[in-house]
Amino acid sequence: MGQLPVDGDTLYLGIDGGGTKCRAVIVDESGQTLGVGNGGPANPYHGVARALESIDNAADSALRAAGLPREAKAQLVAGLGLAGVNVPSLFQVVQQWDHPFKAQFLTTDLHIACIAAHEQDNGAVIVSGTGSCGFAHVDGKTLTLGAHGFPCGDGGSGAWIGLECVKAVLLDSDELGPKTALTDLVAEQLQARGIMIVERLNGAKSSDYAKLAPLVFNAAEQGDEIALRIIHEGADYLTAIARRLWSINPPRMSMLGGVSQRIVDWMDKDIAERMSAPLRQPEFGAVHYARTQFAALAEPVA
Amino acid sequence: MGQLPVDGDTLYLGIDGGGTKCRAVIVDESGQTLGVGNGGPANPYHGVARALESIDNAADSALRAAGLPREAKAQLVAGLGLAGVNVPSLFQVVQQWDHPFKAQFLTTDLHIACIAAHEQDNGAVIVSGTGSCGFAHVDGKTLTLGAHGFPCGDGGSGAWIGLECVKAVLLDSDELGPKTALTDLVAEQLQARGIMIVERLNGAKSSDYAKLAPLVFNAAEQGDEIALRIIHEGADYLTAIARRLWSINPPRMSMLGGVSQRIVDWMDKDIAERMSAPLRQPEFGAVHYARTQFAALAEPVA
Repeated sequence: MGQLPVDGDTLYLGIDGGGTKCRAVIVDESGQTLGVGNGGPANPYHGVARALESIDNAADSALRAAGLPREAKAQLVAGLGLAGVNVPSLFQVVQQWDHPFKAQFLTTDLHIACIAAHEQDNGAVIVSGTGSCGFAHVDGKTLTLGAHGFPCGDGGSGAWIGLECVKAVLLDSDELGPKTALTDLVAEQLQARGIMIVERLNGAKSSDYAKLAPLVFNAAEQGDEIALRIIHEGADYLTAIARRLWSINPPRMSMLGGVSQRIVDWMDKDIAERMSAPLRQPEFGAVHYARTQFAALAEPVA
Repeated sequence: MGQLPVDGDTLYLGIDGGGTKCRAVIVDESGQTLGVGNGGPANPYHGVARALESIDNAADSALRAAGLPREAKAQLVAGLGLAGVNVPSLFQVVQQWDHPFKAQFLTTDLHIACIAAHEQDNGAVIVSGTGSCGFAHVDGKTLTLGAHGFPCGDGGSGAWIGLECVKAVLLDSDELGPKTALTDLVAEQLQARGIMIVERLNGAKSSDYAKLAPLVFNAAEQGDEIALRIIHEGADYLTAIARRLWSINPPRMSMLGGVSQRIVDWMDKDIAERMSAPLRQPEFGAVHYARTQFAALAEPVA
């Protein structure tokens, strides 16, 4: 084990906490990365105790990677960007956590992803992964759109595309909706047709529906009418999100998440062309957030 | 406790097993009702052991009401109409149950509801309650439509209407969809707006969404465009089911379930006018099914 950092050195911990895993990074005052680590699921919407444990484990793992002793945890200024804390009651619970760090600054995973994508406070991001949402931050003003979860929202996300696909295939199988190439594609992937699809999806999570999304993109590229309708509807929703985010004039906008690379091609051209590549990973946004919030605390009162 | 029925008397048990409860009736050879009873949830899709226990409890409860001893259970010829057994693997599991009856004849809740509604084997029913589906039986040929469950199917059901309502209200709250009167109606019922609705519906079941359906009918009657779109889309789906069911020429068709009374007014007029009132409760259809199946077994081989 290494030594505790010398007095006066501030170390920053950045946490990117999502529904399936949690990433941590430790960075020193000069901005150098000392170590990275991982933990389990960290979305408090799916369990607060589990999320806090995952964050703690990810911090330990990053400390080990940095060659620092566990006691150094009490010197870390932590920035936490977590999924689920857009729900006010969950923000409260995590905010009141008796955390093991020197200081804790909490915000959403979207916010730190946005900071990281643009390497500055101001900017906007649209996420299309298993779920979907939009976020912009401009001079202290924020705008969050979507992030409503499955099945109530998340238009244009993998889970939404997968659910719309299943709905269309079941209508086709009942001869109550148009024929679609998705029927055979889903039959191949799930080894099921008609009512057997319902059996196969008993207890399915949003991530299970998201696994069907690539089929819908493939069918749309082959010109299937139903697949085209689904992809266009999803892309139009994300385009509408982008237009509202641009309305508060962020300097840059990026698309994030596993579905974004494919769906961006179906969004309105003027919007798609204005997207910029994300510059850094979200956990570095959490570090930046911790650093600026900590510095603001230290400033003399005006 | 009463006496065992005399030798030679066959008693019939009819079971109507749904997702929230299970109803039982015991009827004698002459068709007279001896006793009725109740049990817990009996949809094996949500737990096989629980469903079988509920059926057994409902039978015990009907035996008590009939003044018959528990041992009389072994003399009952049982007809079981269960939700969920349209899924083939679940039909198998219940079929192979080491049941406590003299004989067991298994079919779907839809099938027995259809027999009961028309007091004969041939007929058709459309259910719009928490979920939705259609069923017709004509001279040994059956046609089942929908019954795909929430959130993949169940168009025009209470849960579907409630989910579409929440989706529209969240789009309104993000200013990504049209304004709708549903926003204030949902705010009043759930005491929540925007992201707080998502918090309120964390872990919500299909029956929770169905509680919002009356708001959508109310708003549609007041002319709200979004509510009208939802109700029309749901009613059109049920109309399409009805047209396909009529195509196999059932003698009668009925609408069943808590939402059917309100949504039938929005279906195509020619279809709505051809609906007939259901004649009996589903558990009596289960008795009829048990009786005809048992008689067929006793017939000499041709």
